Amino acid sequence: MSLINALNWRYAVKKMNGQPVAQEKVDKIIAAAHLAPTSSGLQPFKVIVVTNQELKEKIAPIAFNQSQVIDSSHLLIFAANENYTEEGIDHVFSRMNAERGLPDSGTDAYKAQLKGMILSRTAEENFNHAARQAYIGFGIAIAEAAILEVDATPMEGFNGPELDKFLGLDKQGLRSVTLLPLGHRDPEGDWLVNLKKVRTPLNEFLIEFK
Amino acid sequence: MSLINALNWRYAVKKMNGQPVAQEKVDKIIAAAHLAPTSSGLQPFKVIVVTNQELKEKIAPIAFNQSQVIDSSHLLIFAANENYTEEGIDHVFSRMNAERGLPDSGTDAYKAQLKGMILSRTAEENFNHAARQAYIGFGIAIAEAAILEVDATPMEGFNGPELDKFLGLDKQGLRSVTLLPLGHRDPEGDWLVNLKKVRTPLNEFLIEFK
Repeated sequence: MSLINALNWRYAVKKMNGQPVAQEKVDKIIAAAHLAPTSSGLQPFKVIVVTNQELKEKIAPIAFNQSQVIDSSHLLIFAANENYTEEGIDHVFSRMNAERGLPDSGTDAYKAQLKGMILSRTAEENFNHAARQAYIGFGIAIAEAAILEVDATPMEGFNGPELDKFLGLDKQGLRSVTLLPLGHRDPEGDWLVNLKKVRTPLNEFLIEFK
Repeated sequence: MSLINALNWRYAVKKMNGQPVAQEKVDKIIAAAHLAPTSSGLQPFKVIVVTNQELKEKIAPIAFNQSQVIDSSHLLIFAANENYTEEGIDHVFSRMNAERGLPDSGTDAYKAQLKGMILSRTAEENFNHAARQAYIGFGIAIAEAAILEVDATPMEGFNGPELDKFLGLDKQGLRSVTLLPLGHRDPEGDWLVNLKKVRTPLNEFLIEFK
């Protein structure tokens, strides 16, 4: 399916039917997020996958009891780094240079400039920056899910700090920013399934300088 | 091309060859961003398209003279709303209900709750929230460009306030967050074209709760 058709097919499913998504499709959705571009290639986020039903049931109340958390087969959580660190930046560049068979010295100047910029910002500024990178991966994961005809409901409605504590993400320097339950729509139980997809008119969305 | 293959094909092109991207492809890339999901469907961002060569040349110094700004045929700018407003939220819901042939009263409770949450946040919190929504569209636009074999270089390296002032986006309540020049790679002039794409190992990117 073309991406445009897929984006028209998808919607924020309100009721899932509990049928599991094929693992092969989930792997592709995660691969898409993993391949997403990020600022200077730093990939300051992780994807958490919860398939354990008991855990999903405990997460539901942290997400205002939205049923998709439980009825999805795979609950994805996008979590951004709470900050950047010098060690983390060094690690990314060392690995990149090693995999490219290049000496570390070749990126020293760029890396020093990057560190000067990033490490002079506040933790909150860096977290906001990392969160935006996570959202690139989030968008691309949504695209891949739709192409594969997997239903995925983007969710910001949950208590991040509580979820981070519950899963121990806080101890890993992570802050969850979005949920993306993966499953299949239950058309009979979903009030949204037959409603028209509405977007702002294109001429209000687009500004052209010709 | 599958999205996974497309994501492996794409890279952050450093040198474009000046050949124009077919308008039909640009239209699809914009359509993909336009169809992107956003929080409560508020779509708090716009896409600006600059094709005017003189303007692109004036924007280049605002973006550290990165050559892709000039050598792209279409420079996309993603700009987030600087804040949410009560009128803006009302407008989105009125249009949505009208297009769905539903009475406005049906969403009154949800809308009141949403306003209570959004309008109690600071302008900066709301801008950060809007920016994240813009990044969902940004990610999906990058995906569509790659599928169509259009080169697109994600860029955060530019002076946002200066660009906003130059294009008058500030007067429209917009703050630019990313650039996405669209064009075609110039393999002979691009140092990055033959370097391996490197990502963090999947087992470091993914956390599983089975």
